[in-house]
Amino acid sequence: VKHTVDFEPVGRRAQAEDGEQLLNVARRAGVGLAAVCGGKGTCGRCVIQLVAGPISPPNSVESKFLTPDQLAAGYRLACQTMITGSLKVHIPPEALTTEQRLQIEGQALTVAVEPPVVSYELRLARPTEADLRSDARRVREALRQLGLADVQIDFAALRQMPTKLRENRWLVQADVRNTQGYEVVRLAMPGRPTLGFALDLGTTKLAGYLVRLDTGETLASGGAMNPQIAYGEDVMARITYAMQTPGGAETLQSAVVEGINRLIGLLCERARASPEDVVEAVVVGNTAMHHLFLRLPVEQLGLAPYVAAETQALDVKAREVGLRLAPGAYVHLLPNIAGFVGADHVAMLLATRLYEGEGAALGLDIGTNTEVALRAHGRVVTCSTASGPAFEGAHIQDGMRAAAGAIERLRIEGDQVLYQTIDDAPPVGLCGSGILDAVAELKRAGIIDRTGRMREHPLVRQGKNGLEFLLVPASRSGNGRDLTVSRADVGQIQLAKGAMRAGIETLLAETGLTAADLEEVIIAGAFGTYIDVQAALDIGMLPPVPKGRVRQVGNAAGVGARLALVSRRQRALAAEIARQVEYIELTAEKNFAERFAQAMYLDG
Amino acid sequence: VKHTVDFEPVGRRAQAEDGEQLLNVARRAGVGLAAVCGGKGTCGRCVIQLVAGPISPPNSVESKFLTPDQLAAGYRLACQTMITGSLKVHIPPEALTTEQRLQIEGQALTVAVEPPVVSYELRLARPTEADLRSDARRVREALRQLGLADVQIDFAALRQMPTKLRENRWLVQADVRNTQGYEVVRLAMPGRPTLGFALDLGTTKLAGYLVRLDTGETLASGGAMNPQIAYGEDVMARITYAMQTPGGAETLQSAVVEGINRLIGLLCERARASPEDVVEAVVVGNTAMHHLFLRLPVEQLGLAPYVAAETQALDVKAREVGLRLAPGAYVHLLPNIAGFVGADHVAMLLATRLYEGEGAALGLDIGTNTEVALRAHGRVVTCSTASGPAFEGAHIQDGMRAAAGAIERLRIEGDQVLYQTIDDAPPVGLCGSGILDAVAELKRAGIIDRTGRMREHPLVRQGKNGLEFLLVPASRSGNGRDLTVSRADVGQIQLAKGAMRAGIETLLAETGLTAADLEEVIIAGAFGTYIDVQAALDIGMLPPVPKGRVRQVGNAAGVGARLALVSRRQRALAAEIARQVEYIELTAEKNFAERFAQAMYLDG
Repeated sequence: VKHTVDFEPVGRRAQAEDGEQLLNVARRAGVGLAAVCGGKGTCGRCVIQLVAGPISPPNSVESKFLTPDQLAAGYRLACQTMITGSLKVHIPPEALTTEQRLQIEGQALTVAVEPPVVSYELRLARPTEADLRSDARRVREALRQLGLADVQIDFAALRQMPTKLRENRWLVQADVRNTQGYEVVRLAMPGRPTLGFALDLGTTKLAGYLVRLDTGETLASGGAMNPQIAYGEDVMARITYAMQTPGGAETLQSAVVEGINRLIGLLCERARASPEDVVEAVVVGNTAMHHLFLRLPVEQLGLAPYVAAETQALDVKAREVGLRLAPGAYVHLLPNIAGFVGADHVAMLLATRLYEGEGAALGLDIGTNTEVALRAHGRVVTCSTASGPAFEGAHIQDGMRAAAGAIERLRIEGDQVLYQTIDDAPPVGLCGSGILDAVAELKRAGIIDRTGRMREHPLVRQGKNGLEFLLVPASRSGNGRDLTVSRADVGQIQLAKGAMRAGIETLLAETGLTAADLEEVIIAGAFGTYIDVQAALDIGMLPPVPKGRVRQVGNAAGVGARLALVSRRQRALAAEIARQVEYIELTAEKNFAERFAQAMYLDG
Repeated sequence: VKHTVDFEPVGRRAQAEDGEQLLNVARRAGVGLAAVCGGKGTCGRCVIQLVAGPISPPNSVESKFLTPDQLAAGYRLACQTMITGSLKVHIPPEALTTEQRLQIEGQALTVAVEPPVVSYELRLARPTEADLRSDARRVREALRQLGLADVQIDFAALRQMPTKLRENRWLVQADVRNTQGYEVVRLAMPGRPTLGFALDLGTTKLAGYLVRLDTGETLASGGAMNPQIAYGEDVMARITYAMQTPGGAETLQSAVVEGINRLIGLLCERARASPEDVVEAVVVGNTAMHHLFLRLPVEQLGLAPYVAAETQALDVKAREVGLRLAPGAYVHLLPNIAGFVGADHVAMLLATRLYEGEGAALGLDIGTNTEVALRAHGRVVTCSTASGPAFEGAHIQDGMRAAAGAIERLRIEGDQVLYQTIDDAPPVGLCGSGILDAVAELKRAGIIDRTGRMREHPLVRQGKNGLEFLLVPASRSGNGRDLTVSRADVGQIQLAKGAMRAGIETLLAETGLTAADLEEVIIAGAFGTYIDVQAALDIGMLPPVPKGRVRQVGNAAGVGARLALVSRRQRALAAEIARQVEYIELTAEKNFAERFAQAMYLDG
């Protein structure tokens, strides 16, 4: 028996087997339903509302996460709901992972263009009975006359060569890669652009850039969700999926590759180019995203001592991973530093120039894992801290991603809560910067103390999970529910910022510095760009430095990827950075637990 | 409507659409039906006999090739027959292309083994919190300690690496290729053999050799039909199929690759090894087979001036062409010389050492195209002659391939014809060596003169196509038909040997030599091994030299492939040979037509 499931308001329809899990159907339909736990029933985020149709009765997991009122109104968890007939379901905005605000603009490129692929126009002699040289030899000899010795020809480019030469009447453009020796990666009609594609491959989002390799100019840029999100929202959930589901690694790989192909198609359309014109790509991501993209095993990344399969920079043929670019195009993957400090961090170091210059400087790339780098005394030390997904709205009662209706800024004035939401939509939850503001404001107003404990206040009440502060009453919210910050939510933020701060303190101790020595604190990444720096200082997420020393640089990883795309020298520099950076494994630090406990206090 | 077609005696069954061509069904069923013309109805070879079932009425093409008696007995051409119901058909042995006698044994290897892939046993430190090096770095550093610098790791081998290291508890064997730099092509349990596979990829047959790379020992060898034969028996028919049939090149490529995979599987089974142990392959074939195997375009090979897409030696990842070997295994393709002188000829020159030594020597590789090489005065000149398929039994009234029942030796004693058939089966036709003997004997007996004209004789009669000599009456043949040699058949042999001899004469003229200067005549290939040398001398197929100077060496191309498989030096030598050999395009020689006309005479 087959049933039909309609998803609103996204407008997707899917066929479902009798007895199939609704979350699974949603994934198949490409509906980005939040599922932090990967469908295990432990996060309670994949909330849907039944509009019409039969449904299995609620189970104990659903009763735990949903109130009787919600259950009565048709709210259910997609991971616990089995299909028993055709359905129409509504996805509340806070459960949707799609339609996020994406941070893709970074600094401008300021580097000499020295591209890995260069075009040469070749005018070849037509074969005759007196000149029976093979097509390939004709091309190689023409390139040799231009000073390029020992040129290899990519196998896929070779397959196209006889046709391309004759179609273009022996006047062609050869796109030649020069890294370790010369290699023809494409033959084309003279005048075709040689484009590059740079990708910041995030756990949550893809940020892509289409770049002219000859000038370094960015022709188009854009973002998309990482389609792997349907299989688990964080790195560990994906590693688990890859390890435990038969064919899981293949599913994750093809999901992200298809997403990247779509993004490239979109950017090429905007730039009126063809993906065939993309002769080189650079991909940066954390080590797990790097491995899943290449379908390298991730088991050893998920288990102590968490080692990477490969940390060195890699050149892989685009076709070997399923990217549809020019026939012989390569994907260059910047080096990783360690199991939890990936190529995206190297790209950030490259873009921010943190590795060079005098004086002590701190770099942070805030996310589910926050990478911290510290430059001091000619060294760069780095670590990764498990800051968790709280800054992305997960494990927070009314947390949500940075989508329409999310509170992103917040002030408490007496008994009044003033707030600003994304797109000025009616409030339905708090995104990361809103939560951070809320904790800082609760502390400033004296409603919580340095340990996070809540005192009595007109807006503080007993909630389902202990004390909670009422931010927005149901009457003014966009989903008919009270929006609150609970003591438990504050605790989540304390854990997140404590982990990050403990990492910072460990690096300072390693280099014998204190916060006062820091001449600069650089915050990279989408979340880091949106936060209120003063709030972050107030709750002690950042070490105590003058606010003016903090610089929010946006998506530095994307900038770094573009630098490596257009400059062979920058690639060499990235390899050098990865070699020089000293990785500190926090779990091996004997003072770490103590520093962590200390860092949990909300001390500015 | 679907029908069932049973093929006897091969025992294959296939489903067929109503109205489908029977030849097509036979191809799909893997029945090797002869079809020299590729199904165009111009060769009349795809004869079948209806055993049971309905069939479309005979058309004019069938009436041309089949006698009324044959048509009455149910004989039909598969390419002209449409399916109108379920059938049982019988394939006469002379129409079968399978089950041929294959020539796969050549000379013994006499070369220092210097393999392109060598195994190293690595004992690696297990990762700990104090040693977080990536898996790949661990392997590279262990290899560096063994003196191997800058080792690359194949991408597919890298994908297996984390699993292989842990399965084998950090004691592994790394198989490292050393050509232009080092590359790990496989990780395995210590002690796994490193095998190589050498293939002589012929238009008609595959001859494969499974070789231990460390010792050079051949563990297993065997032959199979080239499955492309179902799409046309000669090079031009295949090029036409690739050019004119949508998806034709892909069909031909996957057909031959699947055939090779099967052959490798068979040889590995015999040697109790796994195709995963095959870490390197070498393939030699004529230029068209080379291109079709790699799916390089062949249009330019089929049209004047017949140039190759690539003549240089190639290293291609086995997985890129669909061969299932060790993860990172390469296929090395020896260089081609020109459009019609391929890597098989280079392999023959390598194996026979024709390129070295003093004195003048001639090398012949007889086939549909016969390649001729002449060493003289420190030069090697070569040409290709279109000797045609007559030596393979095609275009000969009662010709057939070297299968059971083929007359392979023949003597005429007065009015008696003595003959020997393959497998001593009742005679059903003549294979190449039998036809050659027949022409030589007819000439010796004075039944034909030097122009090929037949005189009166008790066994000479008027046949369908002019005069013919009765070899075997229907009463003693295996197919109830008279077996004859016609004046037209003699003409076909004159054309074939004339082309070959004209090529030889052109090379002699080019180097200023005469036949008397030749110290050695080397004949390579299956056909060349079976022929009676005296017969070949008697009809002037070979230049007049003392019989003792003629050496039949068997499948020299296969030997050359094995030499290149186990020795990097031999590969370098092959490249050197291909560079040094001077190719003479016969169609550009102004004296060629005259030499050809002269060479048609049956002068010993």
